[in-house]
Amino acid sequence: MMECQRRLRALEIDTYFQLLGVAKGKVKADLYLHGATVINVYTGELQAANVAVKGRHIAYVGPSDAMVGPDTEVVDLTGRYLCPGYIEPHCHPFQVYNPESLARYVLRHGTTTLVNDNMGLYMLIDEAKFLRLMDEMGNWPVKMLWSARLDPQTHAEEFAPFFAPDRIRRLLDHPLVVQAGELTGWPQLLGGDRQMAENLLYALRIGKRVEGHLPGASLETLSMLAAGGITAEHEAITAEEALRRLRIGLWTTLRYSSLRPDLPQIVKGLADYRGNTSRLMMTTDGSTPAFLQDGYTDAMLRVAIEAGMDPVTAYQLVTINPATYYGLDGEIGGIAPGRLADVLVLEDLDRPTPAAVLAEGRWAARGGQLLVSWAGIGWEAAGLGKLQENWRASESDFSMEAKLPVLRLENPVITRLQTDARTEHSPAAPTLSDGVLHAALFARDGSAIVEAKIVGMADRLDALASSYTAAKGILVIGQHPAAMARAVNQVLEIGGGIVMVEDQEILFELEMPILGGMSTQDMEHLIERAQTFEKLLRERGHAHYDPIYTLLFLSSTHLPEVRLTPEGVLHVKSREILRNRKLLNRNRKD
Amino acid sequence: MMECQRRLRALEIDTYFQLLGVAKGKVKADLYLHGATVINVYTGELQAANVAVKGRHIAYVGPSDAMVGPDTEVVDLTGRYLCPGYIEPHCHPFQVYNPESLARYVLRHGTTTLVNDNMGLYMLIDEAKFLRLMDEMGNWPVKMLWSARLDPQTHAEEFAPFFAPDRIRRLLDHPLVVQAGELTGWPQLLGGDRQMAENLLYALRIGKRVEGHLPGASLETLSMLAAGGITAEHEAITAEEALRRLRIGLWTTLRYSSLRPDLPQIVKGLADYRGNTSRLMMTTDGSTPAFLQDGYTDAMLRVAIEAGMDPVTAYQLVTINPATYYGLDGEIGGIAPGRLADVLVLEDLDRPTPAAVLAEGRWAARGGQLLVSWAGIGWEAAGLGKLQENWRASESDFSMEAKLPVLRLENPVITRLQTDARTEHSPAAPTLSDGVLHAALFARDGSAIVEAKIVGMADRLDALASSYTAAKGILVIGQHPAAMARAVNQVLEIGGGIVMVEDQEILFELEMPILGGMSTQDMEHLIERAQTFEKLLRERGHAHYDPIYTLLFLSSTHLPEVRLTPEGVLHVKSREILRNRKLLNRNRKD
Repeated sequence: MMECQRRLRALEIDTYFQLLGVAKGKVKADLYLHGATVINVYTGELQAANVAVKGRHIAYVGPSDAMVGPDTEVVDLTGRYLCPGYIEPHCHPFQVYNPESLARYVLRHGTTTLVNDNMGLYMLIDEAKFLRLMDEMGNWPVKMLWSARLDPQTHAEEFAPFFAPDRIRRLLDHPLVVQAGELTGWPQLLGGDRQMAENLLYALRIGKRVEGHLPGASLETLSMLAAGGITAEHEAITAEEALRRLRIGLWTTLRYSSLRPDLPQIVKGLADYRGNTSRLMMTTDGSTPAFLQDGYTDAMLRVAIEAGMDPVTAYQLVTINPATYYGLDGEIGGIAPGRLADVLVLEDLDRPTPAAVLAEGRWAARGGQLLVSWAGIGWEAAGLGKLQENWRASESDFSMEAKLPVLRLENPVITRLQTDARTEHSPAAPTLSDGVLHAALFARDGSAIVEAKIVGMADRLDALASSYTAAKGILVIGQHPAAMARAVNQVLEIGGGIVMVEDQEILFELEMPILGGMSTQDMEHLIERAQTFEKLLRERGHAHYDPIYTLLFLSSTHLPEVRLTPEGVLHVKSREILRNRKLLNRNRKD
Repeated sequence: MMECQRRLRALEIDTYFQLLGVAKGKVKADLYLHGATVINVYTGELQAANVAVKGRHIAYVGPSDAMVGPDTEVVDLTGRYLCPGYIEPHCHPFQVYNPESLARYVLRHGTTTLVNDNMGLYMLIDEAKFLRLMDEMGNWPVKMLWSARLDPQTHAEEFAPFFAPDRIRRLLDHPLVVQAGELTGWPQLLGGDRQMAENLLYALRIGKRVEGHLPGASLETLSMLAAGGITAEHEAITAEEALRRLRIGLWTTLRYSSLRPDLPQIVKGLADYRGNTSRLMMTTDGSTPAFLQDGYTDAMLRVAIEAGMDPVTAYQLVTINPATYYGLDGEIGGIAPGRLADVLVLEDLDRPTPAAVLAEGRWAARGGQLLVSWAGIGWEAAGLGKLQENWRASESDFSMEAKLPVLRLENPVITRLQTDARTEHSPAAPTLSDGVLHAALFARDGSAIVEAKIVGMADRLDALASSYTAAKGILVIGQHPAAMARAVNQVLEIGGGIVMVEDQEILFELEMPILGGMSTQDMEHLIERAQTFEKLLRERGHAHYDPIYTLLFLSSTHLPEVRLTPEGVLHVKSREILRNRKLLNRNRKD
């Protein structure tokens, strides 16, 4: 459930009766949108109708103008289309940008509701602080709803307390939390993890949804998780995979993200599908900044329509369908009496970037410019400031041994073990020559280092360091120990971020002063920085795309095959540590 | 939310993991339905698939037979279709039959979930008893869910305590209550009834739905109620009315009931509609027994299909659509892993009466015969026994005055004022000649009588008395005071029911020993009795249909135009009492 103060159901009774009065034409509307064609997502029809707004809500949709009074703002929208505000049902709001910079950006692009993954903030701060931040974001013009993780998506005992049943229940009970998951830890669930099962069943018991995470899953695996209570899934990369999910009762979310921009081929694959589309949704998932240069949900809609999806169906996938999935269809997701007045003015049916955005009855953006402002989060005051680490790395921290496990980067996020280090500890491991890089993860406090080698990342790279990692530590990849120490130390100096060093010079720097994981800059700046970063890496032989995800996920244990975790180099499936961490006994700078 | 013990979410953890194991093929299924075609209501496709059941739940739907073990019951269903159990989203379970006789009947016809109106029982007993009965019914193989009224649907102060906010909140909080309404008292809401508004908003606040009741409503009225939080409506009698509701965001329930069998013309009117059907549902509403001779939801489906509705769409309207509306689509409404194993075996796609019914994993009916039994309600022990009234009527109770308001029965339930009694008290009122009948409502305790005349009911009728009335009193209609007293007294003698008297003989008698409003007989018996009753009335010149509703609604104030209420003859719209009740100072039989 959405926070109550925003909802019809929480209206002061006199305000409620005023709203009814506008529908009747006896009370005057605040705003009257005249002459447009409404995209009726309930029926799928295009409907000539005027829309009357009172306060935060739509009061009336139809031919009458009885509610127009001398103080009503009447806007002539002849020739335009009206669409409900877009809903992103599966958002990761911490992908270099932060929830605030993301919200400001997406609102201009027509997205008025985000259902956010809590991972990326939840495990960085204490419980009270997280709940307080959630409440604070709950007052923004973009509705910030949440999905609560049931597992840490990395292999580290330190995170266990975050998923204790009492703590998870308090989180799930929160009215802004509408879902549990995404469930990256499903193998543990299937392995019999009772605490995870109980947390999951608690979410269902109180009427909330559970999002899965099942890339490449067989019908048997999907069936197990559907039997286990998963209600939606967003990892299909083909039409066949999407239909496999739909057919076993999962709400199925088609994805167009920086990491998996599969939407066009899924849409093309569904061209002959004539069945029910009301249980399909669409997501940008956790797209990194460079990918967002053309917009957000609006850019995704454009891609879907260009790939052949019927435009009205496409709009349904990002409005009424997710609203219904979350049980919020009485509040959002359609242009009808009683709904929050989240309305987009479109210039044409196939042009999803809105000319103007109405958010809860107020004009929030026009021509791509934001018209509303709101109190930002005082990140530093909230204890979410720069990293304050006094340790510094040195060349000698790196063993640079020959016998390290070798990871081969197959795509931005999948690694394979180059040789079977479990049995022979890479006797034939390459030395650090062209294309072979050293990779290390420092514990955030500098007390330990985990080392491996990596191929498939770049032909040559002096050093790339990042505090943007799933496991909170500082990751560094490169070929020159001195440069690697320099890059790590520069990340520590600026209080967190991504740094490239070449020829002992700082080649690239992106500050991430929110706990080393998020920038405070606006989205336009981040798009430019991320594009520059990608270009510099490409020039050094990086053959993949979306390298920011590579940095994030090298320490994340929800993907195959080998990961750098705080405890050592982990073989994910066997859960075997291939190489233990090395403790560092350093003289602190202080 | 459905009662927790039935739901996946409330499974004991070991049972939960067993269910997952069946999906994987590692644990053996209890039941394996082989070779049928599944009606996949999620996609709308027909799908060749086997279905594996463990305990109460479906574990797997697909090609694998890995979960078939030596103790698995394997049923070959080649050539058959499997459909999810039907859901009746808007049921009145007290229409001469009682919830138990209705449940036994509908289960044989494939309906495995009823969402029941509480009116008809709620106001007859105390709160604790009602809640206890609801819990008791919650254990039946047919899931008995509830919709809680917010108004009494009649005009009497005595019912006000039943709708006090604290009492309504306790009721709405109950996990078996999934909805508020139907809201027959919407005119009071629009008139500014703050208590009703607060009760309604409470339902929305805790995530429950609100059913409207808006026959013939204009777009303005519908808009007011949609703005006011109504989520569904079932009173459309034409395709145009149905679309008007759908377009303003109301879930729209198409009706095929004894009183309003409009479904065929609605379906025909929707023939050209190509829009979204996922927000349409179907209901039998409160059909009286005679109408149920061909079945229940299954009979309605047959009518819809014969009128041209695509069969798969028709099945969706009574399965996944209502399940989704009530937020129960993870539990019921589809054949998929994790759902309760409510599965119907159909002989063909256009033959909705099931050859066999599986209810929560057990064979509940086959060939129309019930295979399961359950502890019935001890009505008498629950304090819901026969009427125990010691008073008796006498000829002299009836004034038989000329100057009484005259009601003209326009159809089974609509009355008009024959002359404007508000100004002239029927100076030209007809005497009791052919076609003019006396109508009186006794207070249940015999302490008062309310009198009127009625035309359009029958050409000649000595006496017809009924304790089956919305206002709890004893209604009597007829032309001969002695016969009328006899009929009333026979109703009292048998402890409640419907009695016709002719030539001082009992012509017809239907006992209703549950508080004078419900029979304890099974449905087949009631169908026969109701048909006999209708035939006898027709022979006496009754020109309408469904006369049981006439008896029920003559004292119900949610319909136009004039009603017999405990306080007098009421003009509904003006709320003016046209004729006051007369107090009766009788010598009690005791």
